[in-house]
Amino acid sequence: MNDFWKEFPIIQQQLNETCELIKHQVKIRNKEIETALIELTYSGGKLLRPAFFFLFAQIGDEQKQEHEQLIKIAASIEILHMATLVHDDIIDDSPLRRGTTTIQARYGKDIAVYTGDLLFTEFFELLADTMNGSDFLHKNASAMKRLLLGELDQMHTRYKKDMTIFDYLRSVNGKTAELFSLSCLEGAHFGGASTEVQRLATRIGRHIGIAFQVYDDILDYTADVKTLKKPVLEDLAQGVYTLPLILAMQKAPARFSTYLEKGADITDAQATETAKMVHELDGVNDAKAFAKRVTQKALTDIEKLPDCLGKEQLTLLTELLLQRSY
Amino acid sequence: MNDFWKEFPIIQQQLNETCELIKHQVKIRNKEIETALIELTYSGGKLLRPAFFFLFAQIGDEQKQEHEQLIKIAASIEILHMATLVHDDIIDDSPLRRGTTTIQARYGKDIAVYTGDLLFTEFFELLADTMNGSDFLHKNASAMKRLLLGELDQMHTRYKKDMTIFDYLRSVNGKTAELFSLSCLEGAHFGGASTEVQRLATRIGRHIGIAFQVYDDILDYTADVKTLKKPVLEDLAQGVYTLPLILAMQKAPARFSTYLEKGADITDAQATETAKMVHELDGVNDAKAFAKRVTQKALTDIEKLPDCLGKEQLTLLTELLLQRSY
Repeated sequence: MNDFWKEFPIIQQQLNETCELIKHQVKIRNKEIETALIELTYSGGKLLRPAFFFLFAQIGDEQKQEHEQLIKIAASIEILHMATLVHDDIIDDSPLRRGTTTIQARYGKDIAVYTGDLLFTEFFELLADTMNGSDFLHKNASAMKRLLLGELDQMHTRYKKDMTIFDYLRSVNGKTAELFSLSCLEGAHFGGASTEVQRLATRIGRHIGIAFQVYDDILDYTADVKTLKKPVLEDLAQGVYTLPLILAMQKAPARFSTYLEKGADITDAQATETAKMVHELDGVNDAKAFAKRVTQKALTDIEKLPDCLGKEQLTLLTELLLQRSY
Repeated sequence: MNDFWKEFPIIQQQLNETCELIKHQVKIRNKEIETALIELTYSGGKLLRPAFFFLFAQIGDEQKQEHEQLIKIAASIEILHMATLVHDDIIDDSPLRRGTTTIQARYGKDIAVYTGDLLFTEFFELLADTMNGSDFLHKNASAMKRLLLGELDQMHTRYKKDMTIFDYLRSVNGKTAELFSLSCLEGAHFGGASTEVQRLATRIGRHIGIAFQVYDDILDYTADVKTLKKPVLEDLAQGVYTLPLILAMQKAPARFSTYLEKGADITDAQATETAKMVHELDGVNDAKAFAKRVTQKALTDIEKLPDCLGKEQLTLLTELLLQRSY
């Protein structure tokens, strides 16, 4: 946890409790993995998904809520997210995550495989605790599957020279938007909000997730290592062709083909040159415009929610998060 | 599936249906992974866990059973087993499994990570389908966790020169016996057997699992590549010190220390020499005697089950499986 939440004291308190529960949940007899997991929990992730969950819970009916249940569901969401991060870092061979060494880089791929698996079981245990007998068990299983299929889509389209917006959005919808959407829906549902609010929450979460991912992908082309806390142009070098590149490529496919044909053999200089072309052809600006339109859809839906502090804070967070410029 | 089940026509039919369901369940848009999973399903694994599940279901009350539910639960058990196999092969760097190339060897570790994850989600989906609202959701989450902790224990004690029987049994209890035990219990429970039969099933499954693993570990010291369908002395070379070695070491620790001190650097010749000492010091025979005692415990408990075809077949299978000499 970091100081991102200082303007949101209620959420900050709830996220602290969520982290405490995660820390408790990952206690196992293998101390190496336990330490790695506690470090990951506290390594400065924003806990956005649990935060959106709690904001939507605020919009619901306090009388219908069980505090402990909400904390457990929030933890289940973050734990599922952590599991996918740990396994993604294996695929990406990532040295850094959230500014610290990844589990696969520090302890090796073997430990990373089991660490991710262990997180899946913790996720599963929390669901068995909180939603046994509810439809949401199925919704979670489906979300987990779509999330994973989104990751597989991304892996499958690596170094795809004619990557389309459709390919990109299909992957983003699964790997990112699915869990944001589920977080918002679960917040509304377990917070006791109406069916209409739950319907809106699902859509708002999806749009926030897509916009969030697009901004995140833009960072690969705009940030420096220090702010991003991971290598810049990492996606490009790894063959993950994201929206800025796709939008720029559509304007001048031929200019990119010589570089992209190199696939994994692209040099740092060629990657830098490619990124330069992405900027020249307005790929970054167009991607920002795209993200802004999607954010606007979310904000329009948020506007339809019943007036309350939760709604105000949700608006504030969405604007803060999706109009960042770092 | 192979012809192992030809003496058990009812079970064979149920296992065929289970495989069909698994095949249906793993249909995804990523054809590469789908193919890998279908191959794994049909690559000649004996489907022992679902088989024990069905045998215990036979002991129950047919009036209380739902055929489709039983097939789904059997599939969930095998799918969880497959998930752990796929991830274990990453850790072990195994080239072969069930006589065919492992997923990690054929498609790389990256695909293997996601393939295992996908199997975890299929497992989870099947549970959401069949036991939502039941205590068994929790039991499955716990079993999955203990299974994984068993794997972690094994990884943690690799190349441990003073490996004890306690270390060994703790790992085996988790990584193997847990799922055998759950399979038998679920068969008894969802087959409509009494509480007493369920209690016996849990214990029988645990003993069968332990004996099965001990025999499996013995094979590493006795089989040739052709029958074993995977490299011989693989465990030893990988630092997985199993019961035959542990029992032999207890008799003459000094004789082993020079070889085991080499850890991962042990040569093929040294591994062969170590195996020879294991035989000389009766490690294999003592391990067999141990497995036989554990098998006997299972058979004694099976004897207490109500008389029926299921009980006869269970006795036959246990004897057939745990007195194999290949």
